[in-house]
Amino acid sequence: MFYRPLRTILVGFVFLCAAASAFAQTQASLVAARRSLMPVPANVNWREGRLPVGKNFSFRFVGQTDERTRQYASRVMRRLEGRTLFEFVREASTSPNPTLLIETATTGTAIPKLGDDESYTLDIGSTQIKLTAPNSVGAMRGLETLLQLLEGDANGFYFPAVSISDKPRFQWRGLMIDSARHFQPVEVIKRTLDGMASVKLNVLHWHLTEDQGFRVETKKFPELHLQGSDGLFYTQAEIRDIIRYAADRGIRVMPEFDMPGHATAWLVSHPEIGSAPGPYTIERRPGIFDPTLDPTNEKTYKLLEPFFAEMAALFPDAYMHIGGDENEGKQWNANANIQAFMKKNGIKDNHELQTYFNKRILKFLQKNNKIMMGWDEIFQPDLPKDVVIHSWRGQKALADAAKQGFQGVLSNGYYIDLSFPASQHYVVDPLPADTTLSAEEQKRVLGGEATMWAEWVSPETIDSRVWPRTAAIAERLWSSREVNDIDDMYRRLDVVSIRLEELGLAHIRNQKMLLRRLTMGKDTTALEVLVTLIEPVKEYKRYQVRPQTMLSPLTGLIDAAQPDAPSARKFNRTVERLLAGGNRAELLGGLRSMVEGWQTHENQLAEVIANSPALAEARQLPDDLRALNRIALEAIFSLTNGSSRTADWRTARIAELDAIAKPKAAVEFAHIAGIRKLVDSAAGVRAQ
Amino acid sequence: MFYRPLRTILVGFVFLCAAASAFAQTQASLVAARRSLMPVPANVNWREGRLPVGKNFSFRFVGQTDERTRQYASRVMRRLEGRTLFEFVREASTSPNPTLLIETATTGTAIPKLGDDESYTLDIGSTQIKLTAPNSVGAMRGLETLLQLLEGDANGFYFPAVSISDKPRFQWRGLMIDSARHFQPVEVIKRTLDGMASVKLNVLHWHLTEDQGFRVETKKFPELHLQGSDGLFYTQAEIRDIIRYAADRGIRVMPEFDMPGHATAWLVSHPEIGSAPGPYTIERRPGIFDPTLDPTNEKTYKLLEPFFAEMAALFPDAYMHIGGDENEGKQWNANANIQAFMKKNGIKDNHELQTYFNKRILKFLQKNNKIMMGWDEIFQPDLPKDVVIHSWRGQKALADAAKQGFQGVLSNGYYIDLSFPASQHYVVDPLPADTTLSAEEQKRVLGGEATMWAEWVSPETIDSRVWPRTAAIAERLWSSREVNDIDDMYRRLDVVSIRLEELGLAHIRNQKMLLRRLTMGKDTTALEVLVTLIEPVKEYKRYQVRPQTMLSPLTGLIDAAQPDAPSARKFNRTVERLLAGGNRAELLGGLRSMVEGWQTHENQLAEVIANSPALAEARQLPDDLRALNRIALEAIFSLTNGSSRTADWRTARIAELDAIAKPKAAVEFAHIAGIRKLVDSAAGVRAQ
Repeated sequence: MFYRPLRTILVGFVFLCAAASAFAQTQASLVAARRSLMPVPANVNWREGRLPVGKNFSFRFVGQTDERTRQYASRVMRRLEGRTLFEFVREASTSPNPTLLIETATTGTAIPKLGDDESYTLDIGSTQIKLTAPNSVGAMRGLETLLQLLEGDANGFYFPAVSISDKPRFQWRGLMIDSARHFQPVEVIKRTLDGMASVKLNVLHWHLTEDQGFRVETKKFPELHLQGSDGLFYTQAEIRDIIRYAADRGIRVMPEFDMPGHATAWLVSHPEIGSAPGPYTIERRPGIFDPTLDPTNEKTYKLLEPFFAEMAALFPDAYMHIGGDENEGKQWNANANIQAFMKKNGIKDNHELQTYFNKRILKFLQKNNKIMMGWDEIFQPDLPKDVVIHSWRGQKALADAAKQGFQGVLSNGYYIDLSFPASQHYVVDPLPADTTLSAEEQKRVLGGEATMWAEWVSPETIDSRVWPRTAAIAERLWSSREVNDIDDMYRRLDVVSIRLEELGLAHIRNQKMLLRRLTMGKDTTALEVLVTLIEPVKEYKRYQVRPQTMLSPLTGLIDAAQPDAPSARKFNRTVERLLAGGNRAELLGGLRSMVEGWQTHENQLAEVIANSPALAEARQLPDDLRALNRIALEAIFSLTNGSSRTADWRTARIAELDAIAKPKAAVEFAHIAGIRKLVDSAAGVRAQ
Repeated sequence: MFYRPLRTILVGFVFLCAAASAFAQTQASLVAARRSLMPVPANVNWREGRLPVGKNFSFRFVGQTDERTRQYASRVMRRLEGRTLFEFVREASTSPNPTLLIETATTGTAIPKLGDDESYTLDIGSTQIKLTAPNSVGAMRGLETLLQLLEGDANGFYFPAVSISDKPRFQWRGLMIDSARHFQPVEVIKRTLDGMASVKLNVLHWHLTEDQGFRVETKKFPELHLQGSDGLFYTQAEIRDIIRYAADRGIRVMPEFDMPGHATAWLVSHPEIGSAPGPYTIERRPGIFDPTLDPTNEKTYKLLEPFFAEMAALFPDAYMHIGGDENEGKQWNANANIQAFMKKNGIKDNHELQTYFNKRILKFLQKNNKIMMGWDEIFQPDLPKDVVIHSWRGQKALADAAKQGFQGVLSNGYYIDLSFPASQHYVVDPLPADTTLSAEEQKRVLGGEATMWAEWVSPETIDSRVWPRTAAIAERLWSSREVNDIDDMYRRLDVVSIRLEELGLAHIRNQKMLLRRLTMGKDTTALEVLVTLIEPVKEYKRYQVRPQTMLSPLTGLIDAAQPDAPSARKFNRTVERLLAGGNRAELLGGLRSMVEGWQTHENQLAEVIANSPALAEARQLPDDLRALNRIALEAIFSLTNGSSRTADWRTARIAELDAIAKPKAAVEFAHIAGIRKLVDSAAGVRAQ
């Protein structure tokens, strides 16, 4: 059935059998070795036995402790109660033999800072658990590991006996939340912080100003937030509350005030510091815009100096992010005064002008004891060496900076707004195995940050854009480089995802809510099947195929669709296993029953979409799914019967698949990749 | 097949046919007449035609308007956008021909008050909508009606042409939230207020002090909230924020400070005003407790006078609720000083002593221009006539008070914490058709309040205890007494329920989240079927069969279970129609396919429950469901074949059903009622 020389087939077959067998072995040992831990700890030694969890579960602190750790432990106990239904003793007991003994040598600093020791050891025996940490933050990390270890079976809940000693690979493990393009209420930020703590992330990078909004209250220049935010901003009291909330979870909060570009919202109330006369209004579109602060105008610095002083007092973190990205300099080129200034001062291009601006800002930060961070664009060899380069460009840019003595944080590869699968982010390593950096230089690569750019997220959908995929990035930044098995990552991610819900995150539950609104009360069963197969279009295609503004409703099918569509992922993975020489009968049978399951919903899907005007943009999808089901089954039947399909058949089917692959309603069927491989295989063409 | 004299059968048959036919007609006409409106307006005249909704939908105000109405209209537009996916023009347009013209004669008072005119008229033609109201609150009510009128089909979204003129039947339409037994965060209160506004409720009765918690910040006596709340209280800033939020939705906020009983939390910091020496700790159990304020001690009034002055300034509403319920007087009886005081002052019993206390409190309220409200127990003929009696005892107590000149509000029958179905609350009328009150006396019956007592609700579950059932109560209080068709209520309630989700309410989506936590990631399909059949035990049985405290986790199967289990309701209703002479073949076929559907999940249900320790208390349920399915099918087959079952068979099956009806895990199968009727019918026994 394969049009290939026999030798190739045989070699391939032997190789694939070995690969499949190795796969099965690896999977079994990983399940045993990693259970539901994410991120995987540095050292784990499983032992025989278990510690049963019953209503007498108690805990006690030894050594130095502080209120935030006591509160943290108390919340952990509440989560354990929520899962087990037990009501434990309420306060840290004074019993000499508590179930859980938490020993912290010192409390550490109340406000976490870069480089804090986050290590801990966790020993679970058959009657007692001992958690030891050098400080409060380490204890918090260990408590989250403990929660992930809870298991249950017909005999009850238990912790498996184990010795863990753990510490992070990278010290900067962040999540950037863009609260500017779409404002996110305080409760969204808080539940996000809870999710971060549960997977051991330690930096909230808070993107607070943009063309589309100025989201921080300033007492010195209230016109900035009043005129630049539609009334949607964080008061300073709320910001202090969030900083405390984050600190109580061992998370730093670093604000970003993006400049000199991405600055339209500043100019609504202060057009005089713009590089063109204005007037300016809050930007409603997505994209890169011209309004830019005027670096040649002293008024700019007269505003920024006290502004940074105010923000430096508000945000206790040592780092302050000034953005610096995507300044295309159009307003600078068009402004005669700016051009004259450049000539007079020997500034030869816009990059140098931005550097001039950055150095002025740097002084304001230094005066307030803050360290500057900015995107790749701010990089200049003569900046002070403590400046941190935040790289959207990639590992090479990061490595280049490290070689010149600069610290850096990677975000290229972690753009979770682009709807790529978790697996794609998971393989991105800030320090790849083939790095050419010396040990000293490697230390300058501080870690990474997932970036939640917020063009297309509302409080209803942001959780599903951040979670669960960010947990996979969190693992990349905490765990060893060798923790990289994608199947095992997904296995654990499914468990983590459900556990994230106990923190109030709505990434799972809001999907069906969105479907119910789309149909206004019609039966959503078929749509629920559909959304296990479709994903939002990737990268920046959304706006291209379905233009919207920051004011548009984010309640469409694309907003209900989520990256890593589960049935599509399962289908594609099964196809891969089939083509890698797995058990043909079993795998083909599995594929067939998946497709036949989808077929049973074809008619209801067509009906509900036809009669729901909010789904008008999706009217082609039922026919597309019908065709996909048909094509998949044709291929599966051929492969099952061993009857090869013709090249013409293949050509026709690939053409159909190409047409279906064109996005409709800004979503795409994520299992087309697998179906293509089946079609190729059925026609005897080796899969790519 | 029926062991009854032929004449009875024939008479019954004729009657039932007539009833069934009338039923079908009524249903059809109600669907046409009421669409998805809830509460049903006072006058509705449908016309031919429709007004299509497209992206050019615009609105404009005429007459006097205020910021809160503009904001309200803006939120309504956002909800309309969320449903339709259109991005409308952003601001109230100045176009002479907007789609929606909102005409308000005056703005009305910024803080709503009892007796506000809430009427409006709504005229929808084929090109324009005109909403007219005497003030802002009327406009808000009309806007909610408009949102309920949105429909959609294959041709798009539209509003049907209609003329509505509407006003409420009762002026007091409340929801009591008990924030004391389980504290509810500000966002829960806010989304509850949004839900209330959407079904035209206008009073939030806020139960703020209890044995189990003192939830309001007081600046004068901070020890009250600091020692009485575990740190879970509302700051005055939060309270002012909630009052403003409610006022912006035309909702009054009336606080309740329950006294002299239900007062343990006061006594934690002020044992000296208790009727027994103390010390006192925050109560953790549910129930009625002894701690009571000492009405004979001047210290009590020294604290209460400034306390009420502070609260009167904080809460702008004219009414203040002092509780007064369930004071059993045990501490009074046991206190020699109190007994001596009573003797000295000629107070002959505890009821008179409480009246003495109430009159002292009344003076404090009057001094601050507040009108007193309290539960039945406060009633005394010589109270001022503006005092409002809040009746948990029932319509008769309310009518008796009205006859003596007192105003009253009904809550008996509206205890939504007791897990009764919506239908049961729906038929409770504050002024039943057979009332003996004169027209003048009837005016004194101001309305009613649903009461959400919070022994067993968390922020995760409170929405499902309040919604959607409270919408049915809201209709009872707004709509005419003749709007009382239960099937039509449930038809509309299903739509309302889904629309409540757009306000952030989580009554639907949190159910499966709770199931996922219970199984820690196992397949929940079978459990999802189970929860369509089971309901929490009713009334006060929960604590009896499954004792818990205020500190226990509320994450069990009972917390996932909801009143009005939908499949059980459908099953029971189908049985009723069958026994009322409906189409036998169709109805029996429907019943059979329901039961056979449940059977397909029997094995998975048994497996998931056996292996999920959090479901250990539910281990009997799979066998129970298996037995119910078997018994139901036996009966259905007999009825289908026309072969009657024996009396012995019936006796055995009823015994099985009785055993199954005993609650396990504090839940009960809600379709046992229907199965009993089928068993009776199959054995030729006339259904009760």
